[in-house]
Amino acid sequence: MVIKVLDKGFVELVEILGDDNSVVQAARTSYGRGLTNPERDRKLINYLMEHGHHSPFEHVIFKFHIKLPIFVMRQLVRHRIASINERSGRYTQFEEEWFLPDEIRVPDPEDRQKSIPFDDKELNRKALEIMRESMENSFKAYEELISMGVAREMARIILPISMYTEAYWTINLRSMMNFLNQRADSHAQYEIQKYALAIAGILKEKCPISYEAFLKYRYEGDLLVGGVENETV
Amino acid sequence: MVIKVLDKGFVELVEILGDDNSVVQAARTSYGRGLTNPERDRKLINYLMEHGHHSPFEHVIFKFHIKLPIFVMRQLVRHRIASINERSGRYTQFEEEWFLPDEIRVPDPEDRQKSIPFDDKELNRKALEIMRESMENSFKAYEELISMGVAREMARIILPISMYTEAYWTINLRSMMNFLNQRADSHAQYEIQKYALAIAGILKEKCPISYEAFLKYRYEGDLLVGGVENETV
Amino acid sequence: MVIKVLDKGFVELVEILGDDNSVVQAARTSYGRGLTNPERDRKLINYLMEHGHHSPFEHVIFKFHIKLPIFVMRQLVRHRIASINERSGRYTQFEEEWFLPDEIRVPDPEDRQKSIPFDDKELNRKALEIMRESMENSFKAYEELISMGVAREMARIILPISMYTEAYWTINLRSMMNFLNQRADSHAQYEIQKYALAIAGILKEKCPISYEAFLKYRYEGDLLVGGVENETV
Amino acid sequence: MVIKVLDKGFVELVEILGDDNSVVQAARTSYGRGLTNPERDRKLINYLMEHGHHSPFEHVIFKFHIKLPIFVMRQLVRHRIASINERSGRYTQFEEEWFLPDEIRVPDPEDRQKSIPFDDKELNRKALEIMRESMENSFKAYEELISMGVAREMARIILPISMYTEAYWTINLRSMMNFLNQRADSHAQYEIQKYALAIAGILKEKCPISYEAFLKYRYEGDLLVGGVENETV
Repeated sequence: MVIKVLDKGFVELVEILGDDNSVVQAARTSYGRGLTNPERDRKLINYLMEHGHHSPFEHVIFKFHIKLPIFVMRQLVRHRIASINERSGRYTQFEEEWFLPDEIRVPDPEDRQKSIPFDDKELNRKALEIMRESMENSFKAYEELISMGVAREMARIILPISMYTEAYWTINLRSMMNFLNQRADSHAQYEIQKYALAIAGILKEKCPISYEAFLKYRYEGDLLVGGVENETV
Repeated sequence: MVIKVLDKGFVELVEILGDDNSVVQAARTSYGRGLTNPERDRKLINYLMEHGHHSPFEHVIFKFHIKLPIFVMRQLVRHRIASINERSGRYTQFEEEWFLPDEIRVPDPEDRQKSIPFDDKELNRKALEIMRESMENSFKAYEELISMGVAREMARIILPISMYTEAYWTINLRSMMNFLNQRADSHAQYEIQKYALAIAGILKEKCPISYEAFLKYRYEGDLLVGGVENETV
Repeated sequence: MVIKVLDKGFVELVEILGDDNSVVQAARTSYGRGLTNPERDRKLINYLMEHGHHSPFEHVIFKFHIKLPIFVMRQLVRHRIASINERSGRYTQFEEEWFLPDEIRVPDPEDRQKSIPFDDKELNRKALEIMRESMENSFKAYEELISMGVAREMARIILPISMYTEAYWTINLRSMMNFLNQRADSHAQYEIQKYALAIAGILKEKCPISYEAFLKYRYEGDLLVGGVENETV
Repeated sequence: MVIKVLDKGFVELVEILGDDNSVVQAARTSYGRGLTNPERDRKLINYLMEHGHHSPFEHVIFKFHIKLPIFVMRQLVRHRIASINERSGRYTQFEEEWFLPDEIRVPDPEDRQKSIPFDDKELNRKALEIMRESMENSFKAYEELISMGVAREMARIILPISMYTEAYWTINLRSMMNFLNQRADSHAQYEIQKYALAIAGILKEKCPISYEAFLKYRYEGDLLVGGVENETV
């Protein structure tokens, strides 16, 4: 299950521990057993979500392989309740892969936390050209330093934060909900929104009942409402 | 995979995410790819363990169902990097199940952090009888309170900390190693040692290479040396 | 600053790192500097709270000395983003101090998650007498075991979960808000509500602007509304 | 207390909660009270460190203001048990400040995890010139994009990972010891070593007994041995 994100990135679900049933199983330990059926399970999951009993959701764990620009990685890594192993620029050489946007964004005059597309086609073209050229030149300089024998860990410091990196990222469903609250939202940077939408799509497919209950009771963002995550993914 | 522990407890492995290969997979993201084979994988795992690169071990995650006395639970819950859902004494009624030791222990005159068996048979018998009787009486009083209509959450406060409780406990391999360092050790309370040994046995079976490397490079306790965990489990 | 809680417990604020200004200081790093004044600081704190930017609140940290029954401790310790050092029943002997409620509670017929006072005076008296007697007998048995030479860590397992224990508890303001959301609420057990109210009172005094903004934008419980925490504390 | 690090960075201790006495205070809760004096306190701290009882060290908490290149920040942020608020490149404009090394490093032929100085003066000069020029050009392109109206969050993606950023960083003494084990070591990248040494110097001054015990019993690195941190800081 690989979802392409941005121009060269992806989110791949490598492995998953548990599913909606695991939430029910963990919760029933607390509240006692008894007969159960799909309708009762759905009600229980909704009850937990509504009343802030989030610990049962920690027993569902997703492991992703993810390829993303460094500046997106810098935001993702702030979600501390997760495990990350990232490709090291100290020990491996960077390939010529950076993120170049499709179009330029300018500050949103109505909400300074957001940015919006830039409708001047000529300026748009020119700005993208400046970006492309700058990144190309940085990468050429990097390659030259490497060829001169400079240590990778040193040569890389001139590379732009748009360079692609890769990581294994393991995160439980509770922590993922916090991630989606922050990043599947129009106030997050546009590029991480795309990763958040891909992850939301995977969550929806693998844990449909928890996903539905999350949207109903705990979701604080604005992008997942109305099934937007389907179109985007 | 259920392992009996103490007189009425158990440790059951419910589910596991990953294995030794997951450690290798996560680590290779950092250090670069290339051909691999079992011998190289073993060397990599040993290298990571020896040099304190423990993050790749976080991508292996164990989910246990565990039944244990409250006083052991109180020690287990201190390992914060784990997810727990415990049966609630507020919403479910306690069954008549408490831990009664096989034999009495007295302070170890040579190490005040430890306790050792009590060789006076008559005193041993008498002390165990006092314990059994006290717990029986507490439980009877609990049942009487319940029958009078007292709320479970209030009636239970007279129950002893030896009462058995149950939990789902999800913990990654890195955190589990810290747990074993503290609890698979003769300075830990005897009863939690037994749970630690059961967990060590499961780890050994499921991730034999990581287990072996852990014992060689990072283990700080004294119980797992020399294969003791086999006999005990 | 010591606040008495329940019959023999307390919450004492030992030390605090930072205050409302620390929140502003941490947040201004993210959003840039500029002139500031009390009114702008208040607005910033409210903005952070409303929009889910909670990380600046982590830089305010409270250290408490707290005395509480074991069954309350068992709930408090579940808040994992905190540091705890508790008196050990393995190395120190328990004193004759347990919690005895003022009055009995019965399940609330209208909300099975809650309990309410028991209006039958005679049954109330009788139930409290059963509780008191059971705890007294358990403690006597404990003392007898100790006098026989039984190790403290073993003798204590017959003691009730109402025994008082003590701890140092260090928690940051963000984690404290999660604690209050869960425990300063009528669905929490009555006894931990009292500790939550004491802590809320301390927070209100030490970080009045953050407290006010918390109540306005993030509080999910029902006890702190309308200044109730004042009366109780 | 501000310590300069690298060409334009610093570590400033803003505030501290507790000191060596706080460790003793937290530990004595567990092990019981009694008379105490400086010699006993020192012994207790050494005992805790030697036997892996690290929780009392969590009650000492340091808050730093730190200025560092992004590539160092990317390593520091991996220490998850800490609180960070970083200046945002989305909302504030970058100043013309990047890290330029004094001299070039090449891979250490004897240990591929390390790098060593480059003794060819002419190549050294040439490589540094390539680096300086590349970063200057990237920054000029950034300024041009900003002047064209491109959103800060987008323009910045072409900036190099050597750009300086700032953060408030709050970390407890236990987590700091883990940080020093990894980063005050010759296998860490040279630049983060410098920050680790500055932090070690602050720790040594503020908690001398804990520092000494750490070096004696728990330190796994190789830079702090023999008082090296004094010279460097």
